[in-house]
Amino acid sequence: MEISQEMIAIGQKAKDAARRLAFTGTETKNKALAAMAEALLQNQAHILSANAKDVEAAEKKGLRKSLVNRLQLTEKKIMEMSEAIQDVIALPDPVGAGEFWTRPNGLRIHKTRVPLGVVAMIYEARPNVTVDAAALCLKSGNACVLRGGSEAIESNKVLAQIIAEAAENNGCPAGSIQLVAKTDRQYAVQLMKMNKYIDVIIPRGGTGLIQSVIENSTVPVIETGTGVCHALVDKDADLEKAVNIVFNSKTQKPEVCNALETLLVHEDVAESYLPLIGQKFKDYGVEIRGCEKVQSILPYAQPAQDEDWSAEYLDLIISVKVVRDLDEALDHIYQYSTKHSETIITENYSTAQRFINEIDAAAVYTNVSTRFTDGGRFGFGAEIGISTQKLHARGPMALPELTTFKFMVYGDGQIV
Amino acid sequence: MEISQEMIAIGQKAKDAARRLAFTGTETKNKALAAMAEALLQNQAHILSANAKDVEAAEKKGLRKSLVNRLQLTEKKIMEMSEAIQDVIALPDPVGAGEFWTRPNGLRIHKTRVPLGVVAMIYEARPNVTVDAAALCLKSGNACVLRGGSEAIESNKVLAQIIAEAAENNGCPAGSIQLVAKTDRQYAVQLMKMNKYIDVIIPRGGTGLIQSVIENSTVPVIETGTGVCHALVDKDADLEKAVNIVFNSKTQKPEVCNALETLLVHEDVAESYLPLIGQKFKDYGVEIRGCEKVQSILPYAQPAQDEDWSAEYLDLIISVKVVRDLDEALDHIYQYSTKHSETIITENYSTAQRFINEIDAAAVYTNVSTRFTDGGRFGFGAEIGISTQKLHARGPMALPELTTFKFMVYGDGQIV
Repeated sequence: MEISQEMIAIGQKAKDAARRLAFTGTETKNKALAAMAEALLQNQAHILSANAKDVEAAEKKGLRKSLVNRLQLTEKKIMEMSEAIQDVIALPDPVGAGEFWTRPNGLRIHKTRVPLGVVAMIYEARPNVTVDAAALCLKSGNACVLRGGSEAIESNKVLAQIIAEAAENNGCPAGSIQLVAKTDRQYAVQLMKMNKYIDVIIPRGGTGLIQSVIENSTVPVIETGTGVCHALVDKDADLEKAVNIVFNSKTQKPEVCNALETLLVHEDVAESYLPLIGQKFKDYGVEIRGCEKVQSILPYAQPAQDEDWSAEYLDLIISVKVVRDLDEALDHIYQYSTKHSETIITENYSTAQRFINEIDAAAVYTNVSTRFTDGGRFGFGAEIGISTQKLHARGPMALPELTTFKFMVYGDGQIV
Repeated sequence: MEISQEMIAIGQKAKDAARRLAFTGTETKNKALAAMAEALLQNQAHILSANAKDVEAAEKKGLRKSLVNRLQLTEKKIMEMSEAIQDVIALPDPVGAGEFWTRPNGLRIHKTRVPLGVVAMIYEARPNVTVDAAALCLKSGNACVLRGGSEAIESNKVLAQIIAEAAENNGCPAGSIQLVAKTDRQYAVQLMKMNKYIDVIIPRGGTGLIQSVIENSTVPVIETGTGVCHALVDKDADLEKAVNIVFNSKTQKPEVCNALETLLVHEDVAESYLPLIGQKFKDYGVEIRGCEKVQSILPYAQPAQDEDWSAEYLDLIISVKVVRDLDEALDHIYQYSTKHSETIITENYSTAQRFINEIDAAAVYTNVSTRFTDGGRFGFGAEIGISTQKLHARGPMALPELTTFKFMVYGDGQIV
């Protein structure tokens, strides 16, 4: 497809900025970040008035209330965005670290962390992603090209302008932070073909958005997102732990990718466990879609259809199945897992070890809520997304995942 | 596009094999590799007779002599393939290593190396890649799906059958090593769309093959290959080193991606250096395509056209340009480099440091031949390709690059 002149201009500017950002020191980057954090607070009124336009348009279009809430900014939310930048300042700069070794011929090879270059983000109507992504990219020495959802365009234009100016006025090259201000879908598709300018695309949002990027992009993509997460309550589970963990995994924030979608229960504890968790779900308004065995134990369970086993509800719905043994559970997860987060609740050592070893997923838990799959909760101090692919990064991605490395080789005339 | 039943069968079989291979121990994998190495020697006559069919067909089709040579197997080449497997046995298994930390809430998080899963290789008419790739994938716990060039189909069918049987008869799951025996291009394209079964595709071959994979694949790709490599002879170069390094980089094996394609010479040493290297190139039959300044110094140089600066000749041809200073050289490399391997020849400390820091490439050298960019020469003991992208792996890829990791998290009832 043809790339428009304006997109090439954005790409070239980003590439040129990345070239200089790659060896811009931590002190300069932190100074720019501090200025960005400050500029958000200084321009609060300006941001809120742009955001009000987005909110008004969204309401006119009849956007769902939960989406409007995500779109809407407040003084408090702007403060939180500013604080999130402060948190990034406190994180160690991943650039410049590495290891080296010496070859028998005297070559010294340094494997050194360097920025990826130009990172493109394609995301939905969450203005805070504009700020978060820009801050994480800048700290890791990457230029970024941001493409947010059309519903947030007025907010994003103002936010991007404020932080880009603050960065440029404090030692970062022009073009370090750029927004694609056109909302037409074709500009996003052009971005996906700009291999000459863009080193990686990270999509953040729903399954439709992510699949579209995977299918259309020739630029390398880090797939994020879809989580059909399972919990297995084993026959040797501590049932109280099992109630707490399963309830927390499902209900604490059902709309996110690390929330639980399918509960598997060993048949030996089905009759004792299911009424406990079932009642809690019922009281909380969680719809249960169960296999026949589940329906026979919980009269209020709906029948599960085939498609329920691969559904990512992101809502107060859960599919529940009784399994004969660990092997049936492993087979079920193997078949339906999106390899995001899986947990077992058991006090049996060998069962736990088999589950942890044999399940293929970004995060595999024993006696822990699936909701822990998160950069902050893992101790990374930040998160730019959760990778569900295996290349480059897996699970929560933070600053080191926004870098690559190069081999710096020092010699004295060596030839082959 | 529609995936044919036979390709789905291959994909499913590979996925099932990968599931078991992921926790097959090093001892079993090494035993299987030893059996593969032995089976090649035992079946020498069978391999040679299949290969003879390929060679005959290639000669009939009028394939270039150098390509026929690459295709043709001999007892010695089979011995070398067998020895290459023995080398892989000696390498440490990357699977199962990692690091762990404990969170304030008591969670213990283990970041553990695991295989990628199913690796697809798409390559040209080099039968040895069939064996090399299978051995490296198996050692790193990956199932592989191999798709070699049509010219080598008879050789590949026999080689794949021999090593797959040897692996299966020695503890590895059926489907660990599979060949796509259909040579029609559409089967390669199907492979590129099999995201459900394939975790990564690694293309190995010419620019056309690699570009086709990048454009068509929805499966994550590791781009390998194209190297428009530069050498800069600085004003402070030791001219004798500069002659040796540049001559070696260009002529030692001109057909490979880490061979030199463009020589940049600082104007202060152009008149002293160019006649030295020019004469050596002339005597060796290297065609020189120079800028005007080069032509004025070397009467036998051809004029360079614009397209010469981005040409990957892979032949005894070199483009040569005189530059005003380091900045002009850095700008030239920034514009034309494929980010593979770049070298500077200088005795000046600060110049060397600027070059090493500011050039963005997989390998950046000071006073070293570009031909060193190689898994073996870097000390990795093997190589499955040289990545020219920045995601996941950069430069020579060996066993660790055929792995990803998963987070194994041990808890005691933690909830969010």
